[in-house]
Formats: sequence, structure tokens, C-alpha cells
Amino acid sequence: MRTHLECIPCFFRQTLHAARLATHDEEKQKAILLKVARELQNFSFDSTPVEMGRIIHRYIKEVTGNVDPYRKLKMEYNELAFNMLHQLREIVDEADDKLERALRVAVAGNIIDFGALTEFNLEDSIHHALNFDFAIFDYELFKVKLNDTDTVLYIGDNAGEICFDRVLIEVLNSMGKKVKFAVRGIPIINDVTVEDAEHCGIHEVADVINSGSDAPGTILKYCNDEFVREFFSSKFIIAKGMGNYETLSDEKAPIFFLLKAKCPVVAKELSVSVGDIVLEAARWLR
Amino acid sequence: MRTHLECIPCFFRQTLHAARLATHDEEKQKAILLKVARELQNFSFDSTPVEMGRIIHRYIKEVTGNVDPYRKLKMEYNELAFNMLHQLREIVDEADDKLERALRVAVAGNIIDFGALTEFNLEDSIHHALNFDFAIFDYELFKVKLNDTDTVLYIGDNAGEICFDRVLIEVLNSMGKKVKFAVRGIPIINDVTVEDAEHCGIHEVADVINSGSDAPGTILKYCNDEFVREFFSSKFIIAKGMGNYETLSDEKAPIFFLLKAKCPVVAKELSVSVGDIVLEAARWLR
Repeated sequence: MRTHLECIPCFFRQTLHAARLATHDEEKQKAILLKVARELQNFSFDSTPVEMGRIIHRYIKEVTGNVDPYRKLKMEYNELAFNMLHQLREIVDEADDKLERALRVAVAGNIIDFGALTEFNLEDSIHHALNFDFAIFDYELFKVKLNDTDTVLYIGDNAGEICFDRVLIEVLNSMGKKVKFAVRGIPIINDVTVEDAEHCGIHEVADVINSGSDAPGTILKYCNDEFVREFFSSKFIIAKGMGNYETLSDEKAPIFFLLKAKCPVVAKELSVSVGDIVLEAARWLR
Repeated sequence: MRTHLECIPCFFRQTLHAARLATHDEEKQKAILLKVARELQNFSFDSTPVEMGRIIHRYIKEVTGNVDPYRKLKMEYNELAFNMLHQLREIVDEADDKLERALRVAVAGNIIDFGALTEFNLEDSIHHALNFDFAIFDYELFKVKLNDTDTVLYIGDNAGEICFDRVLIEVLNSMGKKVKFAVRGIPIINDVTVEDAEHCGIHEVADVINSGSDAPGTILKYCNDEFVREFFSSKFIIAKGMGNYETLSDEKAPIFFLLKAKCPVVAKELSVSVGDIVLEAARWLR
């Protein structure tokens, strides 16, 4: 997905939020914002917004020396969501169609996104996901393709959110599917890393692999070779969240995008409304 | 009031909104956004956010040739608010303290601000202004100072909103006060111009004067000499809205600021919450 003009104010909003978490020094915060304004001059709007996210957050780390500004928030949400696991499993257990319900639970957790949002309401997101229809729901195709595979590549999105993913992975396990769960290579915004995955026990239900990505999404040219091989040999991929959608929506791979549309640009790209939940098969699969 | 870092994302939001009203050419919209990013490098954050607003909107006019992108919206709100005049007068007439009620009506109209906001709800703003306390209300001092003067300089803010101001001006007239109503020198965002004032019949209740301002506020160095003389010889000034507050809050003049705090920066400056209504006497008056 290419970068839209609406992304520009959002880049600065995101930069300010992250810079303030990274340092209390207002001069440094200002320098970072002005640097982003300069970077914008040469930025190709044909690349994805995640490319700019990568530049922004790398620069924040350089200027402030803080390599993980979101660490405290990540731990807080890992803890909060981990303590909800029992409740989330019960929600799934009550359903006749556990797979469908687990998709709803997983997508509810996608609200925990400090890239797209500065504040959010997790309870509202759960309520919405359980009580409203998916705006796009390629569920029949999802089941057909899932039936054809023994293994699933699940590309994770954010810390905390992964406990919601875990509930879906447990359902996939119960269907006999082995899951590889891909995490980012380094801390970026509140995106999931190996440390978060371990904290939330993802290694107990999946094989946790490192994509090597240093961006808040999955830009394949910046991922490690093992992950790229894994990606292109996978028969079934779940790509979670907006960052993975933005970076993988043009890739020819058997991907199902599972996300909550949290910004007008992604919502427009998907022809849905902000707040809608989506399970969309990659274009060429349909 | 100086410019805060939070103003930066907002400059770009405002630029995009105005650029889109001014032209459908996306390349031009992008060029304008990039130009603002360049201007930011040399911008003094000791000046007010309105200084940047002036630069932004001047540049939009230059690039697009559209000297009044908000014209349609302004006319729409002039019309809408003009048709509410009867209702607004009734709200005031019902009150024991008509002056207090008219201040509430006038501040309710301050929501019609396409600089600070992209969308708003006028009905909610009226309901809030009539039913909730002012967060700052220097009303006793306002009455004392008003008692000492026969003339009021009323610095207007936005098109449409001026019909709400008109109701307050009518109350001032009924108290024997002559009012001079200052409008901007050229169209900028949806700020009030002579044309808007005439459309809403402000000339029937006040002497409409042109401040000469080419900014969405009142930066005295850019105003015309007559206005600056008027300003410094006035015994009683009502400055309406955030733009006038941002640009006049450090001036030593007998000003009462009447506004709704619509952004976190102005709210913080006033030590109130976003959405609060305020009647604040200039610092040195208190």
C-alpha cells in the first residue's frame, strides 16, 4: 500500500508521541520532528507508510539513545492481556464455531496499537468484535485454504495483542495445525518481539521465529533470509494488523489479513469504515 | 502564546484540509505539505501558531490561485447561523441575567472553527455552553470594566459564529454601549471578513472595522494603523476565539478573551480542559 497525503499529519503525531516517550528533552523532541520534516522531502510516496515509520523510529533511537521507548507500555499490555487469557478462552469455548469466534477475539486485540492510536478502549474493541459483523469476511475461503495445510505462518503485530492471537493459535492447534509465529527483529513502537512472545507464552503454542524486521510491519527486503524463505514457501499465512497489511498487501502469497481498520487511509484502501474489523484474503487468492 | 510541539501535527492536518478545499490536484496538495515541512525548519517557536497559519494559508493561495478556499463553507455557516438568530435571541430573552446568557450564546458559536477542527457539532456546543459552567469566568471584573466604558472593541473570529456574537452585541447595545466590530483584512480559513459581517447584519448593530489582519488571529504588526490605534486606545476589548487569544494574550490591553478551548495546547495554556468555555481577563487586569 502506498503512502497517502493523510499519512503526513499522522507521521508527525506518531513522531511526537514516540519522541516524548523516548526523552524529556524538548529540544531533542523538536530536532526529531524537524528531521522528519526534512526526510519527507525525499520520501517516495510510492513506498508504504511503514517505510517512513522505520525512518522515524530509527532516528528517535539515534537521537535519544533510547532503543525501546515503548518498553513500559508493552510490558503493561503484555501483563494486562495475559491476565485476560482465561476470559478470552471462555469466550471461544462458548461458541459453536470456535474458529470464527477465535478470529473475533484475535481481531479485538488489534486495538492495542500505539502506532495508529495514542489512546484506545480495549473493552469497547472486544465488545465490537463479538457483536458486530466483519466488514470483509473471507471466512469460507479461509476455511478451504486452512483445510489444505498442516502449518500456518502467523505474522504477529503488537505486544499484549499476542495474547488475543494466542487464543486463535490454540484453536488452530486443536485442529492439528502447527503454527510458526513471526515477531519483529528489534523493538519498534509496541510491535511484538521475542521477549514479548515469551512473556505471553506464545512459544508454548507456536514456534516463535524472528522475521528480522526493523520496521513496524513486514518489509520483506529488510527481513532476514530464513523468514523470507519461510514466507514464500508457506501455504497459509495470517498477517495481523495494519502494519503487516500495509507492507504485504501487494505480495503474491497465500495471506489472510486480519485487522481492525484504525485509520482513514487503511479503511479507504479496504473500502471499509474506521473501526471496522476485517478478514481479507490476498487479492490474487480471490 | 508561543508555538508548542503539539502544533506541528496540527499544522499539517490544517494544511491538508485547506489544500484539499483549494485544489483537487494531488501533486499541488503534496507540494504545499512539503513546503510547510520546509518552512518549519526556520520557523521560530517563540512566535505564535497563528504566524505559521498565516504562512500556510498564504502559500496555499499562491500555489492554487484559490484566494478563498473556505468561501463555500463560510457562506453555509453564515446562512445557517443567520437563520438561528431568532432562536438565539429567545435564549437570551428568557434569562434574568441577559448579559451572562449572551456571553454563553456567543461562546457556543466559537465551535464554528475550521482552523482548529475539521468537524464539529453546533447543537452540542450550544447545549454545553448553556448547561455547563465556564471553566474560567472573570465576569465580575468584566461587568466592572464594562460599566466604565461607553464603547467596546469586539474582535471577531469566524464566519457564522458572528451571528452568535451579534446576540451579545445586541445586549451590549441595550446597555448603551457602542460596539466596533473588527474583521480580518482578507479571507483566511473561515475567519470573518467584511463580506461575512454584512451578510449577518453586523453593521446594523456595530461599526464594522477592518483590522487588516492577513492571519487567522490578530498579529498587531500585520494589522493596519487605524486598527492598531483603535486597539491601544480602547478601554474595553472582547477578543473572540483561539486565534485572537493566541496572538493577543501577551498584549497589555484591557482585553477579555471569550472562547471555547478546542485544542490541547490552548487548553493547557489556560489550565482548562479541551471543550471548556472561558471568559478570561488579560493577565495584567487581574
